[in-house]
Amino acid sequence: MTSQASQTLQSLAQGIAGGSIRTVDLTQTLSPDTPTLVLPPEFGQCSPFKVEEISRYDERGVAWYWNNFTVSEHTGTHFDAPVHWVTGKDLDNNCVDTAPPADFVAPAVVIDVSKQCAADPDYLLTVADIEAWEAEHGRIPPRHWVLLRTDWSKRSVEDYVNRRDDGAHTPGPSTEAVKFLVDERDAHGFGVETIGTDAGQAHLLKPAYPAHTLFHAAGRYGLQCLENLDKLPPTGAVIVAAPLKIQGGSGSPLRVLALVAD
Amino acid sequence: MTSQASQTLQSLAQGIAGGSIRTVDLTQTLSPDTPTLVLPPEFGQCSPFKVEEISRYDERGVAWYWNNFTVSEHTGTHFDAPVHWVTGKDLDNNCVDTAPPADFVAPAVVIDVSKQCAADPDYLLTVADIEAWEAEHGRIPPRHWVLLRTDWSKRSVEDYVNRRDDGAHTPGPSTEAVKFLVDERDAHGFGVETIGTDAGQAHLLKPAYPAHTLFHAAGRYGLQCLENLDKLPPTGAVIVAAPLKIQGGSGSPLRVLALVAD
Ligand SMILES: [Mn+2]
Ligand SMILES: [Mn+2]
Repeated sequence: MTSQASQTLQSLAQGIAGGSIRTVDLTQTLSPDTPTLVLPPEFGQCSPFKVEEISRYDERGVAWYWNNFTVSEHTGTHFDAPVHWVTGKDLDNNCVDTAPPADFVAPAVVIDVSKQCAADPDYLLTVADIEAWEAEHGRIPPRHWVLLRTDWSKRSVEDYVNRRDDGAHTPGPSTEAVKFLVDERDAHGFGVETIGTDAGQAHLLKPAYPAHTLFHAAGRYGLQCLENLDKLPPTGAVIVAAPLKIQGGSGSPLRVLALVAD
Repeated sequence: MTSQASQTLQSLAQGIAGGSIRTVDLTQTLSPDTPTLVLPPEFGQCSPFKVEEISRYDERGVAWYWNNFTVSEHTGTHFDAPVHWVTGKDLDNNCVDTAPPADFVAPAVVIDVSKQCAADPDYLLTVADIEAWEAEHGRIPPRHWVLLRTDWSKRSVEDYVNRRDDGAHTPGPSTEAVKFLVDERDAHGFGVETIGTDAGQAHLLKPAYPAHTLFHAAGRYGLQCLENLDKLPPTGAVIVAAPLKIQGGSGSPLRVLALVAD
């Protein structure tokens, strides 16, 4: 007897191998050039990606090539676990090694605010934006990733970071939009093209850093430094986002894939 | 119109959320205690996992907790790309950043030689083992991961590494079994519970290290330090194994998940 679940998995594997299900890579390449978050100098800083060759088919390893590397849990395309923020610190299963593995494969909606962000680098997603999206595509179902398309990943590194004297100027969600997604839509998490799930100027919002503060308080996740969100449909993609199993880890660089029906 | 691929992805997401598709974590926890491969002293060594706290809701970062870490591309549960071995060095798309993303979600078969390995830590999988498995479960289809259950992951760290004066004594595949899986079964890759895809004494085989030598020559992959293979069915699991997108990387620690119909 073949169960429906068995048939689904078989169709999945065949669809991916045959190309009717596209695998879209949403991940930045990790290299010493990968931009990292820079905090005010009084705070601890996350490490850029550094690599050290162990051997390359040479006297250090005759038949093999490999590297050691140093990185932070929040460098490049990465996952934020609830423990990353103080509001999530006392939740159960709040680290990358204890979060339920079933949470690492989940459906997504993609909300496109790229035009607004082209006009205003400090653009904040509004509840009205979400309602306009829902008028066209239907209500956001529970436990879906909400991915914010800003086209930020298409920028040069300098314009991507977009630092001025008063800090980074990059888009993100308004406090009201975060509250709506957490309280009214039971969102699985929030994924962005920028370095943080919050806007560059989100320290000025109330609460400061609403995406970190409220999503993690609710035990939900963040994804940052995504690419290729313009290649996803507004609904129907399934996101594979499985962080490294770092003991007590607050987050992790990871490969993020979207499975999309063509 | 809903395509079959759309329906498959919707069923996948619903099955995972609802529990009819189980998500089995095949990953070791990454910590300073994670055992690493130790080579003869004349060779370069891969780094154990080292972690450095950046802040923990303190003066170094008032509302957030995060870490920097150092690791090798081949520490803990990890992925081997073809460029890791000299036989794969000139292939196209042979690194973790250039391998086709569709290769990171693929079906698996699980061959259980745990009884043989309990009796002999140097046990080598034979073609006869594979043929006996196929007599029961059917021919291994093309582009399937072949996962070798040895129950090695259930051992203490000392017995897991199992080092003696002449090196590690851990199971793996015979040269003939590797040739059969690559040439006759078009295997997607080879996944093991032990630290290497090859046996601890595989330097004595012809060729030395047949799994590395022949799978990577064929552009195929390795997975090491897997756990929970005893929780998988012989056929039907779909493996999610998406390495970090390290520029020119030879491999990567990663989260390995199996999707299994209950
Ligand atoms: Mn982060
Ligand atoms: Mn390896």
